[in-house]
Amino acid sequence: MVYLNGEFIPKNQASISVMDRGFLFGDGVYEVIPVYNGKIFHINEHLKRLQNSLDSIQINNPYSDSKWLDIFQQLLGFSSGSNQSLYLQISRGADTKRKHSFESLTPTVFVESNPLTPKSKSELENGFNAITQADFRWQRCDIKSTSLLANIIYSQQAMQNQAEEVILHRDQVITEGATSNVFIVKNNTLFTHPTGPNILSGITRDLVLESALRCNINIKEASFSADELMNADEVWISSSTREVMPITQIDSQLINNGKIGKHWSQVYDHYQELKYA
Amino acid sequence: MVYLNGEFIPKNQASISVMDRGFLFGDGVYEVIPVYNGKIFHINEHLKRLQNSLDSIQINNPYSDSKWLDIFQQLLGFSSGSNQSLYLQISRGADTKRKHSFESLTPTVFVESNPLTPKSKSELENGFNAITQADFRWQRCDIKSTSLLANIIYSQQAMQNQAEEVILHRDQVITEGATSNVFIVKNNTLFTHPTGPNILSGITRDLVLESALRCNINIKEASFSADELMNADEVWISSSTREVMPITQIDSQLINNGKIGKHWSQVYDHYQELKYA
Repeated sequence: MVYLNGEFIPKNQASISVMDRGFLFGDGVYEVIPVYNGKIFHINEHLKRLQNSLDSIQINNPYSDSKWLDIFQQLLGFSSGSNQSLYLQISRGADTKRKHSFESLTPTVFVESNPLTPKSKSELENGFNAITQADFRWQRCDIKSTSLLANIIYSQQAMQNQAEEVILHRDQVITEGATSNVFIVKNNTLFTHPTGPNILSGITRDLVLESALRCNINIKEASFSADELMNADEVWISSSTREVMPITQIDSQLINNGKIGKHWSQVYDHYQELKYA
Repeated sequence: MVYLNGEFIPKNQASISVMDRGFLFGDGVYEVIPVYNGKIFHINEHLKRLQNSLDSIQINNPYSDSKWLDIFQQLLGFSSGSNQSLYLQISRGADTKRKHSFESLTPTVFVESNPLTPKSKSELENGFNAITQADFRWQRCDIKSTSLLANIIYSQQAMQNQAEEVILHRDQVITEGATSNVFIVKNNTLFTHPTGPNILSGITRDLVLESALRCNINIKEASFSADELMNADEVWISSSTREVMPITQIDSQLINNGKIGKHWSQVYDHYQELKYA
């Protein structure tokens, strides 16, 4: 079952008009929210970021926070398994004629939930590969929009290169991954690109920074170069569904001789505690 | 009536799955093709550009050129009025699960036709306003993709400023409009940004260049600055539905004292001849 515009219906019956601006223009925003042991993880932060995305593109939030919670809980009632990934998307809605500018429309709301099975620590300890690419995305990456074709192109490149992720650089500065935030550790300090228009301010990114702080790692929200990436002691990526994941090889070059780092292990453990707190 | 995946159906019955990657990711491409006196204008160039867009994002063209022509002609048979604007969109299709990378899917094909009523020469002779903005779009503007949120934001700004168009500059170089190509005339030479990843290679852009050549205007496909734009003798924008349109005011500053130019008038007339040739 999925939620669409006020109804809970089977997924294969969930359809929208071809005139939906989400389809015609990628004119919408989304969120992905993990659920652990039946508890929606950091729902407030996700709903706050959703509101920021909506405000950025002038869509009125159709629901109150309590209405969102109600939808999520009803949807989770239909789901099997206590670890889930909620996906919600709001588009500007369907117009009668295709035109770029917009007036007030009734937004389209779609929510679904799927089983979430994060990798175990022993699986993660093998480390993962990444490749690097020039960041040709737009410069409003702070909006979690559904105009995602650039990210699709990168994700396909990752898959075709048997890589977990594409790490992006703009003018030699590492911004983020195609579908993740990127961290490096150098001399016991954790670096990640500061928030702003060139990255999405990840909820998991914040939790990784918080976890690192608790593990007595220095943290610096400061940009770093592609060279610094390749010569880091540790490289991690983070996202709601991947959590925090060690990258041990980039563009065929080993990071830290291909071994995961001690800081990652500490932060991973702390993050697991946060999930079930 | 509209065309959707093999069928001609009423527009209000044309629906797609919420799992269509066009809706989830803006993962598709489109074309807009004018029809004058029942004749599809430069269909080959539009189908060639469509093919380029599809190739860029690894979607197989679902139809042969003759099949496309057949769909267009059947659709035009349902339309009243001999001047029409055909809109066609191809998305990668619907997947069973939302994931960024893709495998082979059956593309979704949507085509509609709407009456086209270009402005008359006397209406155009009043000139139009534009505003300028920094170009924060992605750097694959040569792909005519449906991930259009940046263009939506600009078009809304244009509307809110009672402007016809937003003219974009990247690092002080004028690239194009949010939904048009941009030209300036200076000392009897016509300039427009060269093709490449920062602009869409417009079919109308090519026809404007051809018309200018026939009118004995020097043409240079070379970039020009925001300063050169503001100090041009003439500024024009072009698109399939707008044809070639004179801009006489930009950011509250008059161009050529707010008067349309003689070159525009010549090129406009020649373009009209091409339409009905």
